[in-house]
Amino acid sequence: MQNVKFDRIGLVGKYGSASITGFTLKLAQYLISLNKKVYIDCYESCDAYAALGCSYGKLTDWLNELDLVIVIGGDGTLISIARTVVGSNVPVVGVNQGNLGFMTDIPSTEVMQFIEEIVVKNHFTLEKRVLIHADVIRADKKVYSSTALNDVVISRGAIGNMIEFDIAIDNQFVLSQKSDGIIFSTPTGSTAYSLAAGGAILHPDAKVFSIIPICPQSLSNRPIVINDNSVIEFVLARDNATQIHFDGQESFNLELHDKVVLKKYPQVFNLIHPIGYNYYRTLRKKLDWAKRVS
Amino acid sequence: MQNVKFDRIGLVGKYGSASITGFTLKLAQYLISLNKKVYIDCYESCDAYAALGCSYGKLTDWLNELDLVIVIGGDGTLISIARTVVGSNVPVVGVNQGNLGFMTDIPSTEVMQFIEEIVVKNHFTLEKRVLIHADVIRADKKVYSSTALNDVVISRGAIGNMIEFDIAIDNQFVLSQKSDGIIFSTPTGSTAYSLAAGGAILHPDAKVFSIIPICPQSLSNRPIVINDNSVIEFVLARDNATQIHFDGQESFNLELHDKVVLKKYPQVFNLIHPIGYNYYRTLRKKLDWAKRVS
Amino acid sequence: MQNVKFDRIGLVGKYGSASITGFTLKLAQYLISLNKKVYIDCYESCDAYAALGCSYGKLTDWLNELDLVIVIGGDGTLISIARTVVGSNVPVVGVNQGNLGFMTDIPSTEVMQFIEEIVVKNHFTLEKRVLIHADVIRADKKVYSSTALNDVVISRGAIGNMIEFDIAIDNQFVLSQKSDGIIFSTPTGSTAYSLAAGGAILHPDAKVFSIIPICPQSLSNRPIVINDNSVIEFVLARDNATQIHFDGQESFNLELHDKVVLKKYPQVFNLIHPIGYNYYRTLRKKLDWAKRVS
Amino acid sequence: MQNVKFDRIGLVGKYGSASITGFTLKLAQYLISLNKKVYIDCYESCDAYAALGCSYGKLTDWLNELDLVIVIGGDGTLISIARTVVGSNVPVVGVNQGNLGFMTDIPSTEVMQFIEEIVVKNHFTLEKRVLIHADVIRADKKVYSSTALNDVVISRGAIGNMIEFDIAIDNQFVLSQKSDGIIFSTPTGSTAYSLAAGGAILHPDAKVFSIIPICPQSLSNRPIVINDNSVIEFVLARDNATQIHFDGQESFNLELHDKVVLKKYPQVFNLIHPIGYNYYRTLRKKLDWAKRVS
Repeated sequence: MQNVKFDRIGLVGKYGSASITGFTLKLAQYLISLNKKVYIDCYESCDAYAALGCSYGKLTDWLNELDLVIVIGGDGTLISIARTVVGSNVPVVGVNQGNLGFMTDIPSTEVMQFIEEIVVKNHFTLEKRVLIHADVIRADKKVYSSTALNDVVISRGAIGNMIEFDIAIDNQFVLSQKSDGIIFSTPTGSTAYSLAAGGAILHPDAKVFSIIPICPQSLSNRPIVINDNSVIEFVLARDNATQIHFDGQESFNLELHDKVVLKKYPQVFNLIHPIGYNYYRTLRKKLDWAKRVS
Repeated sequence: MQNVKFDRIGLVGKYGSASITGFTLKLAQYLISLNKKVYIDCYESCDAYAALGCSYGKLTDWLNELDLVIVIGGDGTLISIARTVVGSNVPVVGVNQGNLGFMTDIPSTEVMQFIEEIVVKNHFTLEKRVLIHADVIRADKKVYSSTALNDVVISRGAIGNMIEFDIAIDNQFVLSQKSDGIIFSTPTGSTAYSLAAGGAILHPDAKVFSIIPICPQSLSNRPIVINDNSVIEFVLARDNATQIHFDGQESFNLELHDKVVLKKYPQVFNLIHPIGYNYYRTLRKKLDWAKRVS
Repeated sequence: MQNVKFDRIGLVGKYGSASITGFTLKLAQYLISLNKKVYIDCYESCDAYAALGCSYGKLTDWLNELDLVIVIGGDGTLISIARTVVGSNVPVVGVNQGNLGFMTDIPSTEVMQFIEEIVVKNHFTLEKRVLIHADVIRADKKVYSSTALNDVVISRGAIGNMIEFDIAIDNQFVLSQKSDGIIFSTPTGSTAYSLAAGGAILHPDAKVFSIIPICPQSLSNRPIVINDNSVIEFVLARDNATQIHFDGQESFNLELHDKVVLKKYPQVFNLIHPIGYNYYRTLRKKLDWAKRVS
Repeated sequence: MQNVKFDRIGLVGKYGSASITGFTLKLAQYLISLNKKVYIDCYESCDAYAALGCSYGKLTDWLNELDLVIVIGGDGTLISIARTVVGSNVPVVGVNQGNLGFMTDIPSTEVMQFIEEIVVKNHFTLEKRVLIHADVIRADKKVYSSTALNDVVISRGAIGNMIEFDIAIDNQFVLSQKSDGIIFSTPTGSTAYSLAAGGAILHPDAKVFSIIPICPQSLSNRPIVINDNSVIEFVLARDNATQIHFDGQESFNLELHDKVVLKKYPQVFNLIHPIGYNYYRTLRKKLDWAKRVS
């Protein structure tokens, strides 16, 4: 992989952000000066990009032509693009706009030298991140299906109505639970909502998923970590308002007796980090572990 | 209080439960045999009660005439009645239908002897339970107001949208928080939703409220216990779907910049227990502390 | 209290700290310039203090003559002095040496103006902090007794040997537990070891104690908050190495069947804060709540 | 493996337990009636075993001749034997004496039929459990070394003295921590001390270790789950009484600057379960998940 050529590069940012548009323009100019062909995800007012000679339009239209996608924004933006990109196998690198992200780890202030290292010198670290996929089965028919890089969450619509469900893993019954909801998290998602709900941090190299109850009624319900080759089945056991969410960005209403089958998505997400990337350093910075205890 | 006369007794159960209706009839007969005047909370098909010579109708119509309310059902039923009864100062005793409740602690199978002890021999324990009251202020006007025996909860409507808010206590700024929501719990509520969210158990004699974050984004946000004479101010700082809930039974939609002022309700709820009541025994049974560790 | 005269002032610091000795000298000179009589807790090499005209020696020798004690150091130093001072009713103010403390909240860099406000203008806030006292009873005889401002902790001597014990409160049996230990915390101690073990934060105005299990074997054992007028009895039920600790500064070995009786110490500790003191601000700073969530 | 012959079987129990001795005798007789050669771990008063024609003596003397070890006792007994057996590759099955164990899952009351299924019909499930190994390095020399099936724990000797240390994983610095201690747990150990300290449950198929802080001073220190091929380095950073423990059964005193290197033990532990074994069912029973929530 380290000998790939990054010749055709797509730029994707958060829509409607003026600061990102300006930054994208600057980065496109720089890439063109390196003789790269640049594609920009842009729906309207794209004239400035066109003037530079960039292709523009909808990411999915030319995704298969790309060697690399550069995401500009926070981890949320990168996550929303991951679900689109994962099928194509194109690697992604993230540039943040101020706050270090877990995945958007190139600071915009030093973007030129970092990107040059990657696209010219081919100095980078490639990480293969696992996604989790869920099918919703209603009366033996698949009624919904999606994929998440962070987590699939099934949770109540409103308080006073904890949801009730059964979980089986690899055809073995695991438990019946009454709770605000349950999180099925990848290692990538383990530092997101899972952490707020009391889940453990999973290193991206751990080949596992984590299942974390949200405010369970039984005090002995605890997070469980399982091999990511396992197949999880969730069945809704009570007719309360219940939704399934993918990365907190897509959702679908569940009905009584709906079955949700969760498993590892067959393709991995190729995440590029600059050389010298260190997962634990990011963790320390994000969780304030750098701070000396007194 | 131990010399009061329990001559006029109201019976209140869960509506639409046939088993409770039958039980209520039996209990009414028994109370009449003790020369008590019996009132039954009943809206329709009340002929059987009328035939016994009971008054019936809406609890609030004759609440002020009563010496005692007997609630038949679980803690949820008792809680819903507490908000109605608290203003009248009439004491309440709870009869459960199978599962020991924290407040409905008389088993229906032995209801006769337990009730006789209370209403004839005046053998009982009176506990004064504190309620929490909240006013919702919008643009300097009170737009909603209610009271809870367990808890006031302010929480998100849907995932992916943690709520953001500021809290001040006794005019001192406490914190800004991003979380799924926040629980303001009385000691009574400390064994309900608060416990699932990681709050401490508060003995009913502790003159405190507990404030418990639900899945807070910052790992250093922890439950806080404050004197129950404190006045708490909550201000919604971001325009996400947010609701305020009272005992999980009543709710109201909040808007950006709404202020919620929470304080102790001026009147206490008078809860009667049979002689020999022991808070810790109930706790042990409900939380399985009775079980020997192996 | 706000009209008291602070004429005789004791200075107490951490022994063997050269920086504290220099600072104490400067502060003593300043207090003398305000016509205060100064006493310094000093055992050896006290000539410099004597030269200024200060009294010196052991705190307990002249504690009853004092109007105020100024503690120089961190919270740990102040806590160790609290147990000595509490019987005398003399108020204490704390000056920290760099890190804001929960109780040592005057920064040494601005000590002159803060102290002047207090001892000349009588501008200050007085807080009454509760202590917890424990008697160890062996075969009906009291064999040890001490007092803590933060916490009394009973814990194992070594791993692999969880301790086993019974707790009763106000003569009611509460639970049998197997754990690494148990913390009995005052509101003051709730931000110390208690917090690391999962206890709630208790505002100093809350009239409660908190009982926090340390790594309990049963997942349903949770912290309990009780009225601070309660009397707690602990009985050691198994013959493993077990110690009782007071503020982590004093300890005593327990034996099988030892009973420990814990209750509120009859006298309060008078803690002085500068005007404008705000408990929640200290909390925010110490727990990093000031930090904006991203 | 399912076609192996279990002809030479070792029996190992808890020493000094009369009930186990009687049970062992009965089981030995039964195995002899099946034409098995029986070896019994026995140091004294072994005449009854000899009379039956069993070999007896120290497990390690004839471990390499065995096809199977049957452990009689609880999980603690099995764990202590695992460290001895692991090098030999001989599989182990556990018979409990009343309380279902996570690994000793054959009830003694039905031992004959369960054992017959395994040793005659070869109906069983084989699970390969990972062990964690630690070397203690002092001034560049290995001074201690041992292996654990559950966990390696490094913890303080006494309260008031949290330990301070640094952790690196795969040559990347992870964090500095001040806490009561830290647990390095295998999946097998995840339901033991790790669970009491707030760790997640790890399914035995998850190829991970879990690192769990015990009462950390920093509220943002959380359990971390890593690939079990990782190499962990722990360095003691402060001179407080500190011990390293293996399965809570073996321990060694650490000194300032000691480095502990932890990694997966090269050989797995072969654990045999009866057909129909279900990890989640054991979990449900041990954690009371079988109980219906009310």
